[in-house]
Amino acid sequence: MDKVLVVALGGNALARKGGEATASEQLSVVRSTARQLVEIVKAGWHMAIVHGNGPQVGRILMQNEAAAHLTPAMPFDVCGAMSQGMIGYHIQQALGELLKDEGLPQRPVTLVSQVVVEREDPAFGNPTKPIGMFYDKAQADEIAAQTGHTFREDAGRGWRRVVPSPDPVEIVELEQVKALMERGFIPIAAGGGGIPVARNKGGRLDGVDAVIDKDLAACRLADDLKADVLLVLTEVEQAYLDYGTSAQQGIEHISSDELLACQGQGQFAQGSMAPKAEAAFRFVSGHPFRRAVITSLALALEGLQGRRGTQVTD
Amino acid sequence: MDKVLVVALGGNALARKGGEATASEQLSVVRSTARQLVEIVKAGWHMAIVHGNGPQVGRILMQNEAAAHLTPAMPFDVCGAMSQGMIGYHIQQALGELLKDEGLPQRPVTLVSQVVVEREDPAFGNPTKPIGMFYDKAQADEIAAQTGHTFREDAGRGWRRVVPSPDPVEIVELEQVKALMERGFIPIAAGGGGIPVARNKGGRLDGVDAVIDKDLAACRLADDLKADVLLVLTEVEQAYLDYGTSAQQGIEHISSDELLACQGQGQFAQGSMAPKAEAAFRFVSGHPFRRAVITSLALALEGLQGRRGTQVTD
Repeated sequence: MDKVLVVALGGNALARKGGEATASEQLSVVRSTARQLVEIVKAGWHMAIVHGNGPQVGRILMQNEAAAHLTPAMPFDVCGAMSQGMIGYHIQQALGELLKDEGLPQRPVTLVSQVVVEREDPAFGNPTKPIGMFYDKAQADEIAAQTGHTFREDAGRGWRRVVPSPDPVEIVELEQVKALMERGFIPIAAGGGGIPVARNKGGRLDGVDAVIDKDLAACRLADDLKADVLLVLTEVEQAYLDYGTSAQQGIEHISSDELLACQGQGQFAQGSMAPKAEAAFRFVSGHPFRRAVITSLALALEGLQGRRGTQVTD
Repeated sequence: MDKVLVVALGGNALARKGGEATASEQLSVVRSTARQLVEIVKAGWHMAIVHGNGPQVGRILMQNEAAAHLTPAMPFDVCGAMSQGMIGYHIQQALGELLKDEGLPQRPVTLVSQVVVEREDPAFGNPTKPIGMFYDKAQADEIAAQTGHTFREDAGRGWRRVVPSPDPVEIVELEQVKALMERGFIPIAAGGGGIPVARNKGGRLDGVDAVIDKDLAACRLADDLKADVLLVLTEVEQAYLDYGTSAQQGIEHISSDELLACQGQGQFAQGSMAPKAEAAFRFVSGHPFRRAVITSLALALEGLQGRRGTQVTD
């Protein structure tokens, strides 16, 4: 049996930074990404894909807010489901066609995926993820009064809604993902970290307004699948000590304990390298045969081969 | 092995007619629908679900058009993918929770699904499906000049974009649907008739601006799965002869040849009963052990038991 891999695709695997955010641009970026993924399949890895959705779901929410006078705006969980459809479609189309061109039998498919979070998660008391449009203070106050949403001033650019970023505790469609992988398919699952759902008092799942970190969701999936490797792709070639200073130094290999110590020292930026390091730590800690790799999309295969990027082991 | 069934869910299974089109309303309608579907599962049927998306994808397109000054409007294929995420999420959440409550092991999952159409399909020369917002003639002419879109005057309400409705020839993710069914899951696939894709000159699949009839897509899926029954759910209890006249008469049982003759006589309304009759005809014609049932959501189980609705056999 091939080695099992969960790949977490970052924003630059899906869109060009500062690009136009048109569908054709997204598809063109996704096609280059798919080329890298095909090399990984060729090398014998058996893969599930988790992708981010930050800019895309932000745009969907913006469209919903801007057209709210025409048709009701969908809540954030539904916007997340829409982003899974949108992004998953382009990935599965691009990747499926390239795999066929290469004569490879594996085929991808996107599963609409819910991820359970706990209502008691401390993140609900401290919403941190900015989403959607910028408003002036008066507008933000008015919307907050109407909806109960929380707004924060965002770096001088205006007021923006913030939502909590709770921990992923369960992938609802895990068995469906497993069934597809066992049959040789490439599932695209837990897109954008998954549609966040929580149990209400009756025990039923309800969508909640939250953003689950996609690297932590990928870690959850990799752990559940008992994957061999968690590959976290990002814009930089590896994790660094003293990043952005004259003393900056790439990390080639690090143990989970050392990684945790670096986290504790604040070596990794919040909302950027910190969740990737956290995902890597959670995946390998206590598992001597597991490995996490943090590297760039361009170096993905070399990273898997242990030759580039940051290699994290227990 | 249980009997295999493909259910096509019509608009009234997803939204209240003239309702508010909020997410909570959609979820509440979908929960009632899910209750009917659970009865079918309990009765031993092994099911795949195809749903419509007309009003929903129209609203997504409207949001895209209305917010085009803020963020690029997505093309129609991408809007379709978004609608699969949105509708599929609610169906799988509602159905999954009900099945669990009932102690049933089956679990649903939505697959983002592409459906191939042929560029030579005569529908491309005659776009008929109205989608998106209403414009006045000057606006419609301007957009048509910019985009090449076709607009038609819509029953005195203004000008509206029309897209072709070509025939579904292949479900790209069929093998993924089969793999999940063989493992006892309930796939929700080809939502809205599927994301329409066609082969370009290089042989690669590209999204196209089109709407595939969801009943015909359900027929395609049922045929490919070698299903025992195609169940087409709609607003009325059955198909009728002389519908809406004083001579109106419900059809309880009809052969495929008789059905075709009725189609030829114009007994079934275009865009309403006609595609359902066509789907039923295609599914059973030449297959003596197959059956198609046209009935309402409320009578779905009785229809499957052969006691209500219109039963179509070869």
